[in-house]
Amino acid sequence: MDLFMQAAIEQARLGLAQGGIPIGSVIVHDGRIIGRGHNRRVQKGSAILHGEMDAFENAGRQPAGIYHESVLYTTLSPCAMCSGAILLYGIRQIVIGENQTFMGEEALLRSRGVQVDVLQDADCIHMMRTFIEASPELWNEDIGVEDSDHPL
Amino acid sequence: MDLFMQAAIEQARLGLAQGGIPIGSVIVHDGRIIGRGHNRRVQKGSAILHGEMDAFENAGRQPAGIYHESVLYTTLSPCAMCSGAILLYGIRQIVIGENQTFMGEEALLRSRGVQVDVLQDADCIHMMRTFIEASPELWNEDIGVEDSDHPL
Repeated sequence: MDLFMQAAIEQARLGLAQGGIPIGSVIVHDGRIIGRGHNRRVQKGSAILHGEMDAFENAGRQPAGIYHESVLYTTLSPCAMCSGAILLYGIRQIVIGENQTFMGEEALLRSRGVQVDVLQDADCIHMMRTFIEASPELWNEDIGVEDSDHPL
Repeated sequence: MDLFMQAAIEQARLGLAQGGIPIGSVIVHDGRIIGRGHNRRVQKGSAILHGEMDAFENAGRQPAGIYHESVLYTTLSPCAMCSGAILLYGIRQIVIGENQTFMGEEALLRSRGVQVDVLQDADCIHMMRTFIEASPELWNEDIGVEDSDHPL
């Protein structure tokens, strides 16, 4: 198991233990984690703190060149907002835990030259599948859809 | 002048008065502002609180249907991150103060069915032009480019 994906999974589990949505992310520069994050919708009543956004926020105001050289790890395929943040900061490579429970904007990212690797990690899939089954309303809220749009 | 764009400009001016980057945004549902925001990079040391993101954060955990019916106003053409948030939450209409000092992801938004209106408001243009001339490093940091990439 990739150590950095393991760190992202630890973030997801931390979020789950807090009663939150189990998605985690880390941003790695030159072999060192410069930002860790997990979804904080529940914990902070936040509409923007997805796992990847939280990792950016915790990495903070880095020089552009640092972000350009960084790799972002996330347990789940990144949504439009998080993919947009990846594009804004010129992240050139991301590693995704899985995209079976949710397919984000991978095609857009690839079309802009981002290297996207998907691990289809069994732990990530199990964690999300269990969560979505238990809390479909919360999950739908997190991806901006009405329950009636996407009955689970 | 559109009253909601005026409210977004007031947010931008508030940010400027705080020593921040003068970009503001409001989210309007059914004729009522449900979230106001301004760029807080400087004020909060934030990598993610662009004006539009701050407006989403202040609007908070709304039901999906509320966001679907909302209109977002922003003083400046929205970057990839903010455009991604607009797509995530299914915002169908945005009104932009200007896109002369920075062209965001308007084409992507339109390609996804978002109605995008650009006012080319003289106050918005003047505010950004003055700011970029005075603080090019801060501006470049905010849009994720190295100073050497985009000399001003």
